[in-house]
Amino acid sequence: MADKQFDVLVIGGGPGGYVAAIRAAQLGFKTACAESNPYADPKGEPRLGGTCLNVGCIPSKALLHTSHLFEEAEHSFEGQGIKLGGKVGIDVPTMIARKNKVVDQLTQGIKGLFKKNKVAFLAGHGSFESAGPGGYTVRVGNETVEARHVIVATGSRPRHLPGIAVDNKTVCDNVGALDFDAVPKRLGVIGAGVIGLEMGSVWRRLGSEVTVLEALPEFMPFADVDVAKEALKVFTKQGLNIQTGVNIGETKVGKKGVSLAYTDKDGNPATLECDRLIVSVGRVPNTDGLNAAAVGLGVNERGQIVVDGHCRTNLPNVYAVGDVVRGPMLAHKAMEEGVMVAELIAGQAGHCNLELVPGVIYTSPEIAWVGKSEQQLKAEGVAYRVGKIPFMANGRALGTGDPTGFVKMLADASTDRILGVHIIGANASELISEAVVAMEFAGCAEDLARICHAHPTLSEVVHEAALACDKRPLHF
Amino acid sequence: MADKQFDVLVIGGGPGGYVAAIRAAQLGFKTACAESNPYADPKGEPRLGGTCLNVGCIPSKALLHTSHLFEEAEHSFEGQGIKLGGKVGIDVPTMIARKNKVVDQLTQGIKGLFKKNKVAFLAGHGSFESAGPGGYTVRVGNETVEARHVIVATGSRPRHLPGIAVDNKTVCDNVGALDFDAVPKRLGVIGAGVIGLEMGSVWRRLGSEVTVLEALPEFMPFADVDVAKEALKVFTKQGLNIQTGVNIGETKVGKKGVSLAYTDKDGNPATLECDRLIVSVGRVPNTDGLNAAAVGLGVNERGQIVVDGHCRTNLPNVYAVGDVVRGPMLAHKAMEEGVMVAELIAGQAGHCNLELVPGVIYTSPEIAWVGKSEQQLKAEGVAYRVGKIPFMANGRALGTGDPTGFVKMLADASTDRILGVHIIGANASELISEAVVAMEFAGCAEDLARICHAHPTLSEVVHEAALACDKRPLHF
Repeated sequence: MADKQFDVLVIGGGPGGYVAAIRAAQLGFKTACAESNPYADPKGEPRLGGTCLNVGCIPSKALLHTSHLFEEAEHSFEGQGIKLGGKVGIDVPTMIARKNKVVDQLTQGIKGLFKKNKVAFLAGHGSFESAGPGGYTVRVGNETVEARHVIVATGSRPRHLPGIAVDNKTVCDNVGALDFDAVPKRLGVIGAGVIGLEMGSVWRRLGSEVTVLEALPEFMPFADVDVAKEALKVFTKQGLNIQTGVNIGETKVGKKGVSLAYTDKDGNPATLECDRLIVSVGRVPNTDGLNAAAVGLGVNERGQIVVDGHCRTNLPNVYAVGDVVRGPMLAHKAMEEGVMVAELIAGQAGHCNLELVPGVIYTSPEIAWVGKSEQQLKAEGVAYRVGKIPFMANGRALGTGDPTGFVKMLADASTDRILGVHIIGANASELISEAVVAMEFAGCAEDLARICHAHPTLSEVVHEAALACDKRPLHF
Repeated sequence: MADKQFDVLVIGGGPGGYVAAIRAAQLGFKTACAESNPYADPKGEPRLGGTCLNVGCIPSKALLHTSHLFEEAEHSFEGQGIKLGGKVGIDVPTMIARKNKVVDQLTQGIKGLFKKNKVAFLAGHGSFESAGPGGYTVRVGNETVEARHVIVATGSRPRHLPGIAVDNKTVCDNVGALDFDAVPKRLGVIGAGVIGLEMGSVWRRLGSEVTVLEALPEFMPFADVDVAKEALKVFTKQGLNIQTGVNIGETKVGKKGVSLAYTDKDGNPATLECDRLIVSVGRVPNTDGLNAAAVGLGVNERGQIVVDGHCRTNLPNVYAVGDVVRGPMLAHKAMEEGVMVAELIAGQAGHCNLELVPGVIYTSPEIAWVGKSEQQLKAEGVAYRVGKIPFMANGRALGTGDPTGFVKMLADASTDRILGVHIIGANASELISEAVVAMEFAGCAEDLARICHAHPTLSEVVHEAALACDKRPLHF
């Protein structure tokens, strides 16, 4: 007999897990959520919110916000007539403290949501023990829990590189990169993915010389080809030294920082000397401590739990969501899967459309996209039309002095259905939502072209891109 | 015989007019656009863009942007660790010069669009002379122009009050309010509409003591009742002294400023002493100089040209769009009508849905809405459900330190169709676009609830409001 019984046990309290737990409880299930991370709250309990809230999306956005204002103050205030008494400076500990306060508030907020929705919070690491007629027995810390339904939402952890020990002081992954105590003079970043670009941007704005080394030959191959090209141009102009096609060699960490040997894209040997190094080369699903074998839960060679389109595993009543399964490692994708799974357990028609999960990079300009890129459509042999409009043609963008980038819309050449929307520019993260909505309604470019967009807004550029798919933009 | 012949003549080069002209030219018509405003470009020609670009939306947004950053610098930088080395100051002439540069760039841009689309620009005031078998003869400056189709897009001008002479130095309408040479110590604003609130906010942020006097008993009766309540609370907390239900009396303008007698909402006499006064009590359609009577064009007692749902006047082949006709005086509404009319002239199925024209106020927090307000639904006897979520529950809003306000969604109680969306909060102007799109697709609250929203974004609050319509918010 287990110590505790639940209808639904969620293992992991990140965005996929806590949302699944809340939704399951809303649907009437006796629900628990187990979490065991090292980010203790004031009571000494593990914090909810997973990587996203504790050491991911939320703290990085807080730092991106502050560093963006810092950069505005340095570069745009004078031209606007805003006079500062002297040189702009940054007090890193205060910036970090504010970031921590935001994280505190939000992670504590989820405990409040658990109370409100009557989800039991279990502090402890969850691992399978056995399957029986009453459901699954899972060890959570020192207790055993029996649950009819189990949702695995154990998330992911940063991938590290062999030979480069992460101490989160000098050599950091996402955790340490959010907690520098000062602006490093020279910052190295291995990996030009979302995290590397965001954290590189934060510290570059605050004064670091930033070098980004990427092993892949192409920059941002996950984005639309035009967006990647524009991003490389803009980031380089901002001062990020981005090198692709490199081969990382030996790394030495000394008192004075890091010395990193590599070969550049032409095979020439080079050395990067930096004071701090961020390693951001992807993330690994967390299945190690789950004891999946005890119940025969299927895990693939990449460490992902194997699921179908509805996040069902090979075991009855066991589901898995978020970073621990296939698909983009994004909080909002995990949340949608969490809701779906809770609704499926309740016998409802849960669904999550992985084709229309937007992607966002919170650099400046922001980058956001949904659907297919131009290179994907080419590879798939789909005939398409392109509408591409620069923010330079937009009154709001000029009014805020930030007219970098463009909106690019791809529509089916014969049906006009929107197949992809790719935005690089201020507020792209918010602008993408109308594109997702239009695409979920199977909308055409002409639909968006005929919908009234408030003036003056940046969303008018989405409107113009839709018009441009039919070669009739009004403002370009 | 007229001096010039065109297929389509547009009278007025504001947002309704220039867009109608561009679209007509795109559709193959030989098109001209006449404009005669006093805002001269470097060549001495009238500028295109009308009130919106010259003395409305665009310059006000430029000043709102600068003053918003000024306020951020004064109030939020320290807590974020951004050090300024002294007190923040504002150099008003530099701020105004930047604003003027943005206006220059955009108005000149429209001349470029005219060239690109082959629209003839006619400098001069357009007024009807006669109707004949070949079309209408219109005097434009010293020339006569004959056109088969005429689109009247003459816009509107600020309404002034009897006994309060506007000199645009001490007593200003929207024109002067955008061109102060210094921050007034005490600023009076008559009229708590969009322009009064926006301009009051600009100068309040920069240090003015601002008093807003509104004749109507209610504050912002045009907005949803909850939004108006929140706005009054927030604006008052920011330092705007807003008084409703006042009765404006005698105004004396002297060397030291303005002395304005009024009675307050309880009928008590009061006096407002201020250095500058902005009169923003609505706008009047421009039909005076049009010589409408020469051709029998129907104008109503309010000075509006009478049109049907497709902007057709009482005369064949004469259309009118924008502020000069019924409906909200908004640039984007005028633009949509301009496109519609050009397409109707071309025999296409032009349409403009006045029910789903979003409204925006660019205060801080911004306010935006589309569809019906709660009080409208009550008055119409429609049964509805409400989903209302504060930005305080949103990670992005906390990350940027700006969690004021909420999203309120109204859905039909039986069909779940979205009937109205009302936003007060940062970026409301951009967030409203997905609501407009969803409503144009006749979407339900559940549709938006089931669409993936990128995390962390402010648009997640729209998502949560949709979930809340079904009493199942995940983060509140």
